[in-house]
Amino acid sequence: MSRDWNELIEAQWQAKQFLCVGLDPDLDKIPSHVSGNSLRERIVAFNKAIVEATKDIVACYKPNSAFYEAHGAEGWMALKETVALINEIAPSVPVIFDAKRGDLENTNKSYASAAFDDLGADAITVQPYLGAEALEPFLARADKGVIVLCRTSNPGAGEFQDLLVDGLPLYQRVAKNVVELWNKNGNCALVVGATYSRELGEVRAIAPDMPILIPGVGEQNGDLGASVGAAKRSFLISTSRAILYASSGVDFAEAARAKAQAYDSAIRKAL
Amino acid sequence: MSRDWNELIEAQWQAKQFLCVGLDPDLDKIPSHVSGNSLRERIVAFNKAIVEATKDIVACYKPNSAFYEAHGAEGWMALKETVALINEIAPSVPVIFDAKRGDLENTNKSYASAAFDDLGADAITVQPYLGAEALEPFLARADKGVIVLCRTSNPGAGEFQDLLVDGLPLYQRVAKNVVELWNKNGNCALVVGATYSRELGEVRAIAPDMPILIPGVGEQNGDLGASVGAAKRSFLISTSRAILYASSGVDFAEAARAKAQAYDSAIRKAL
Repeated sequence: MSRDWNELIEAQWQAKQFLCVGLDPDLDKIPSHVSGNSLRERIVAFNKAIVEATKDIVACYKPNSAFYEAHGAEGWMALKETVALINEIAPSVPVIFDAKRGDLENTNKSYASAAFDDLGADAITVQPYLGAEALEPFLARADKGVIVLCRTSNPGAGEFQDLLVDGLPLYQRVAKNVVELWNKNGNCALVVGATYSRELGEVRAIAPDMPILIPGVGEQNGDLGASVGAAKRSFLISTSRAILYASSGVDFAEAARAKAQAYDSAIRKAL
Repeated sequence: MSRDWNELIEAQWQAKQFLCVGLDPDLDKIPSHVSGNSLRERIVAFNKAIVEATKDIVACYKPNSAFYEAHGAEGWMALKETVALINEIAPSVPVIFDAKRGDLENTNKSYASAAFDDLGADAITVQPYLGAEALEPFLARADKGVIVLCRTSNPGAGEFQDLLVDGLPLYQRVAKNVVELWNKNGNCALVVGATYSRELGEVRAIAPDMPILIPGVGEQNGDLGASVGAAKRSFLISTSRAILYASSGVDFAEAARAKAQAYDSAIRKAL
């Protein structure tokens, strides 16, 4: 049975689930009692415990490529096993491959194949800089989400994203182009950081119905309430470290669940 | 003995070597007689034959991550073995990891570790969209090259890159910021496609001494002569498919060498 990103995420929103958990394994922070015969087994055991503890609360999971690539081929195996185990124990929860990819069209065919066919992700984050023509191999996959960086959550995001083009900051121009030109298959979404709730409101005005992935809550101190208020609907509040490493003890999975529940409650309250 | 990107590439330029060969394995195009017990062995055998046939002609090699990621963990193993074999049989030839990465600062630490520590690359290509603050983990590695996308070679590059900010196209603003603000460690370089030789001249005027990586010659029909004329010095003319797949027969390595020599001659003639 084929999976469809839009159907999966819409079902989550119907069930009032808006929390996205970033699965970003950090070997220095994974509790020492989580062990395995290899680095790969240790990462997968940690991710599995987190998924089992949170799967009925979250809307989606979002492994970030960097934290797996840093461990080479073994890390890549852990990534693939992580996607497979989510599909197995939480089949209704979609997986975003947070990879921020973007290359020439011919090269993006391979990136899309890696993300959707080899790993089995339901969506991917991409860079806008090369434009829609280059990103066509992602955009053409109507059953997969293409989540475009618009206003990133980092302190220095404004260096290029705030520059005015025709009187509009670049991040708003990116949002406009994605809404008006890129979204022919209805599979586009935008990334706007919770650290910029005013900008999030402006993006929502440009993209009234488009899904928005909102990272930056938690360690980055983004404003959850203001972000939910600005996004209104069809959004994902994403956090990683604050949930994954809520406890470094044997109770890490329970602590992660409690933290996920607290975020879930805060989101519902802000709605 | 530690390797330094700037020293390696400067030595190549002193020796009048300006050609960069992209090692982008395509299983459909690798000659059928190149075999191995696994996909990994087949890719490495192909890359090894290309490197042995061209190592005295080229300035550097540039494996693109996408063509390895598409094969999962096995592809990543092939990538790591490829960098190791270049270091072994052509130790004076630097390796650019063409990955076009770019994420938050905390995440970029892992990407930098993957590229420089795990894979052992001498340089990496990065996306400018998140700004210098996020890219600091790359920029801080003074012995490694950080090659920033400026004007990409694809037909749709202008969608955002040509937008005017303060009267200057965005790609020129990227070049200005990289020259004036990002290059504190002297390890920055820029990507400008050979398909845009006029824009290349404008970037060279903004960045008189900065290395420029120029893809787009070969299959993309970029203008080699005009590009060399515009870049003048400290540049790399990069091509992949035109060299790798010059022949699909048993003579593919000799054909690749002949093609590399033809490019090398054309570059020297244009200088």
